[in-house]
Amino acid sequence: MPLDALAAVLASEAPAPGGGSASAAVGALGAALLEMVCALTLGKEKYREAEGVLRPAFEELHGLRAVLLAGVDRDSAAYEGVSRAMSMPKGTDAEKEARKVAVQSALRSATDVPLDVARACARALAHAPAVAANGNPNAVTDAGCGARFLHAALNGALYNVAINLASIKDADFVASRSAEAEDLRRAGEGSLAAALSAVDAALSR
Amino acid sequence: MPLDALAAVLASEAPAPGGGSASAAVGALGAALLEMVCALTLGKEKYREAEGVLRPAFEELHGLRAVLLAGVDRDSAAYEGVSRAMSMPKGTDAEKEARKVAVQSALRSATDVPLDVARACARALAHAPAVAANGNPNAVTDAGCGARFLHAALNGALYNVAINLASIKDADFVASRSAEAEDLRRAGEGSLAAALSAVDAALSR
Repeated sequence: MPLDALAAVLASEAPAPGGGSASAAVGALGAALLEMVCALTLGKEKYREAEGVLRPAFEELHGLRAVLLAGVDRDSAAYEGVSRAMSMPKGTDAEKEARKVAVQSALRSATDVPLDVARACARALAHAPAVAANGNPNAVTDAGCGARFLHAALNGALYNVAINLASIKDADFVASRSAEAEDLRRAGEGSLAAALSAVDAALSR
Repeated sequence: MPLDALAAVLASEAPAPGGGSASAAVGALGAALLEMVCALTLGKEKYREAEGVLRPAFEELHGLRAVLLAGVDRDSAAYEGVSRAMSMPKGTDAEKEARKVAVQSALRSATDVPLDVARACARALAHAPAVAANGNPNAVTDAGCGARFLHAALNGALYNVAINLASIKDADFVASRSAEAEDLRRAGEGSLAAALSAVDAALSR
């Protein structure tokens, strides 16, 4: 979908796509910027020493970008799954029970999809400090942009994890996903701080 | 340009589009999410009291989204202007002088375009606290995503302002743009903090 069309459909009254899909999109743009910095560094004699760190980062970032782009549609589909389950009939006790089971199942998907997006953002963001510190210094602000976008996208995805967890009755599911979400959030703070320090150090040189 | 194609061209070795264009894109997605929250609130009897605050916000956000979408291409064009000027001949003293003038002029454009993007992000972000506090509470996490994206985009655009200012010789230009950039950065921190507080308050209700 073209960027302007994506922005237009986000801006509309339709609740999906919403912040979850947009987080996946912003994460994909962040991963792409870190890839660009790697591409402007790898294979250049001048930055030979960066090869060992940036080559594996470049390859992982490429896969993460694809995961994040796929997350744009996956998140909207998961949201629609919840809406569909919510609109199931609730006339009889059997219908009520079937609806409850379907809603809970859809909510688990609508939690796990943004959690996948958050994981991919956190993994991409974990490369940002090394990309900023070892990448082509002419592109260090691009690494800074990439880190900031991934951090925002990570936290955006985690909002969507939290909001769905709030309606899930399975205590074990809630406990495991909450714990992972908190780990990802904390890792993201550390990666962002390290990346921004590396960018600031390069800019003040 | 489709989102996946934009991400692919960002990820490539081509230095433009880079972080400046990506910041404009992320800002547009952020503004769009705040618009969505307004759209899910305005005209609904239940949220009648929000009308006075959110109606003007909605209208301004719509215009800012357009400014930010236009910034995607404007930033790449400004970058290409600098590259073109840099590749001018420098054989004679006259050529050197003409090149210097052209490079300085192109750098001023390459500063003012991301500054326009930063201004639009800061203005959109300034609406985020009211959107989060007064908007449809079912969409409060979308307001949180929008605020985080606009903050990241603002700071991404400001990186591009700073990197171009570093090569500009006109001290008055540098002083005025640096001062405005710092004002925008600071305003953005305040708006983000207020917006995130409003989101957290709504989520813990």
